[in-house]
Amino acid sequence: MRIYDIIEKKKRGGELSNEEICYAVKGYVSDKIPDYQIAALLMAIYFQGMSDQELYNLTDCMAKSGETADLSQIDGIKVDKHSTGGVGDKTTLAVAPLVAACGGKVAKMSGRGLGFTGGTIDKLESIPGMQTALNQKQFFEMVNRLGLAVIGQSADIAPADKKLYALRDVTATVDSIPLIAASIMSKKLAAGSDKIVLDVTVGSGAFMKNLEDAITLAEKMVVIGEKAGREMVAILTNMDVPLGIAVGNDIEMIEAVEMLQGNGPEDFREICHTFAREMLVLSGQGTEEECDKMLREAIKSGAGLKKLADMVAEQGGDSTYIYHTEKFPKAKYSLDFVAEQDGYVVKMDTEQCGKTAVMLGAGRETKDSLIDSAAGIRFFKKTGQKVRKGDILATLYASKENILAPALSFLKDAYQFGQKQPEPQKNILAKVTKDRVILY
Amino acid sequence: MRIYDIIEKKKRGGELSNEEICYAVKGYVSDKIPDYQIAALLMAIYFQGMSDQELYNLTDCMAKSGETADLSQIDGIKVDKHSTGGVGDKTTLAVAPLVAACGGKVAKMSGRGLGFTGGTIDKLESIPGMQTALNQKQFFEMVNRLGLAVIGQSADIAPADKKLYALRDVTATVDSIPLIAASIMSKKLAAGSDKIVLDVTVGSGAFMKNLEDAITLAEKMVVIGEKAGREMVAILTNMDVPLGIAVGNDIEMIEAVEMLQGNGPEDFREICHTFAREMLVLSGQGTEEECDKMLREAIKSGAGLKKLADMVAEQGGDSTYIYHTEKFPKAKYSLDFVAEQDGYVVKMDTEQCGKTAVMLGAGRETKDSLIDSAAGIRFFKKTGQKVRKGDILATLYASKENILAPALSFLKDAYQFGQKQPEPQKNILAKVTKDRVILY
Repeated sequence: MRIYDIIEKKKRGGELSNEEICYAVKGYVSDKIPDYQIAALLMAIYFQGMSDQELYNLTDCMAKSGETADLSQIDGIKVDKHSTGGVGDKTTLAVAPLVAACGGKVAKMSGRGLGFTGGTIDKLESIPGMQTALNQKQFFEMVNRLGLAVIGQSADIAPADKKLYALRDVTATVDSIPLIAASIMSKKLAAGSDKIVLDVTVGSGAFMKNLEDAITLAEKMVVIGEKAGREMVAILTNMDVPLGIAVGNDIEMIEAVEMLQGNGPEDFREICHTFAREMLVLSGQGTEEECDKMLREAIKSGAGLKKLADMVAEQGGDSTYIYHTEKFPKAKYSLDFVAEQDGYVVKMDTEQCGKTAVMLGAGRETKDSLIDSAAGIRFFKKTGQKVRKGDILATLYASKENILAPALSFLKDAYQFGQKQPEPQKNILAKVTKDRVILY
Repeated sequence: MRIYDIIEKKKRGGELSNEEICYAVKGYVSDKIPDYQIAALLMAIYFQGMSDQELYNLTDCMAKSGETADLSQIDGIKVDKHSTGGVGDKTTLAVAPLVAACGGKVAKMSGRGLGFTGGTIDKLESIPGMQTALNQKQFFEMVNRLGLAVIGQSADIAPADKKLYALRDVTATVDSIPLIAASIMSKKLAAGSDKIVLDVTVGSGAFMKNLEDAITLAEKMVVIGEKAGREMVAILTNMDVPLGIAVGNDIEMIEAVEMLQGNGPEDFREICHTFAREMLVLSGQGTEEECDKMLREAIKSGAGLKKLADMVAEQGGDSTYIYHTEKFPKAKYSLDFVAEQDGYVVKMDTEQCGKTAVMLGAGRETKDSLIDSAAGIRFFKKTGQKVRKGDILATLYASKENILAPALSFLKDAYQFGQKQPEPQKNILAKVTKDRVILY
């Protein structure tokens, strides 16, 4: 077998066999095939796409390139959730405890934020003492005992994906839907859960800018998971506005707590409820109606909040922060974005909102950047809302005063105003399973 | 400027500026841009193509990446000829002396053979003593005095092409028509002639397998040359059968001599006549009719043959070989390919015929292979010809006896026989100039 022939076959639109795909992936990971040949192959895949079978084989081979978690030591059905990334996406922080409170098992490995999207691990680490690097034994025991644990993804999960992603990142081959699907699913397959609910974000703050591409991505990921014997549901959610009010580590942690208390912004509550319900139904905890009822109960009784506090305590964190969110240190400086005239917020470039938060210190510009937990933005008026001159649209938080003014100026460019109220946006756009696509 | 953005732009089908193209080429040649990014760019070019302006800019930048010959020290109009390669293509050996005998100036840099196609330099070097590495001063003086010199291409001609070609060769991006056009023309522009006649071969023994692709390649090369201020003609010739009878270094040299004596196979004579005429017309030596007449005269008088002998002598070769071709050593062993039944030769896989010659020792499997000048094949019956059982279709020549039988077996697979005479093939298929395409 020669990598040249594999490139040539894909270039001509042929379907690669499992042997050919594994030959390329293993050869690359072991440095036997040089990066220039894989770069050419990736660009050929960008143009020619991949069949479902090719995609499954690629993902499976990437998943098996490193450590694969065997969750059989955890009792019951393990359910995972993954988001393709967004601005203000703190969903896991509320959903995982809710699902555990209702009897689900969530053994979750999460990532850190990079670029304009935040990461669950960074948000959890805003709680003093919180440890996200557990060993496998601790992790399994904790999920068995509590029903959940959220830890940082092991460095040895899908090393082929890491190496391929780094190459895609410098060869303009990141935005290939099959390669995105394989990248995400290789890590999910390696992480070992039986059932997976995907949050595929769509809009100006997501990697998928339009619904059509997002549905294609969702379908590809569902196919891969089902071929690997995992039960899959993908929910397409609106990321044309930031999710909820808070974007930043401390303030998103606080917003997740508020959701578990039955408060918080309506869009975020709907998203959390939907994902928790899907995860519970997949876990065999009941019908949609039954799971809905259990969830309302878990919020009302405080069982969901308690699960979060217990998880924090088990992972070494100071759980009093969960019950007393006023303990989170306030940012030293803040600046309001004030409406200059009456009208409506017509559009928000949500990626730019996320980048503003990064400028303020809430995210990473590079992998080695340090995060300022107190930095961020609260969005009080979002797309569709009426605004009067003098209203506070958003408040920016930072630990350095001199970054507020340029950040505000950058954020202003993300907004469009108008005199006509735009069409209201749905929070949940579609649901994709192996059999069908339901548009809402 | 970032190479990432250049790859992304081409991937999306955008037109690269001259600055962007030169940034990529210069960066690659100077090792500032890594090969994996150029590999991705080449594959994107394979899929998205290049506009004529991009193609000219790329070629110009490649041509200027190394030494460019300034032929101004040679008096008069310098005319070059280039073939895209074929099996039995000894045209330059006869055409260059004929053109010089009729007053043209041919300062020709030629290549060596690689793969299934032969090289003019290898054929010339079958004459004892022949030197093909002249310095610039010797080269210019010789062209001024004799009207011609044929030397090996300098190692510093278009180094960008060498480096890009080596990368294309391992990333399955060789067969991109714009990249082929840029590769050939970068060397032609650097070689400095004022007028260029291209031989674009078409068929089973050529890189272009069909007329449509060959016309596209010819058009691209003509556009590049004209944009660079060179007057261009491209002639498309049939390479669906080997050219002439002889394939091999000594025997092709002998066939070129026979052509200059007014003998030799008819297809080869027509090709030589056509190219010599086009080169003379471009050189301003007269009308087509006048040039035809001069050529017939140069053959009849032996002036063409004398030019070849003089060139060989000037370059240190034993010119008595030209007048006494019986001096060329015969191959030690030979084997006939004998017809097993009556019928017609319906098709010849000419690439496979070329590969058989390489097996016999006439060509190079790798750059470092040694050539056996006496090895080769004479084809006595070619496509379209009637065959009787017992006829000798071809004779194979080699210096080692044990390679003849496997070579014959391989050659047999290149032939198709039938009972119906196929349509006769034209030798000259089309002519492409900047204004038009004429199909014959």
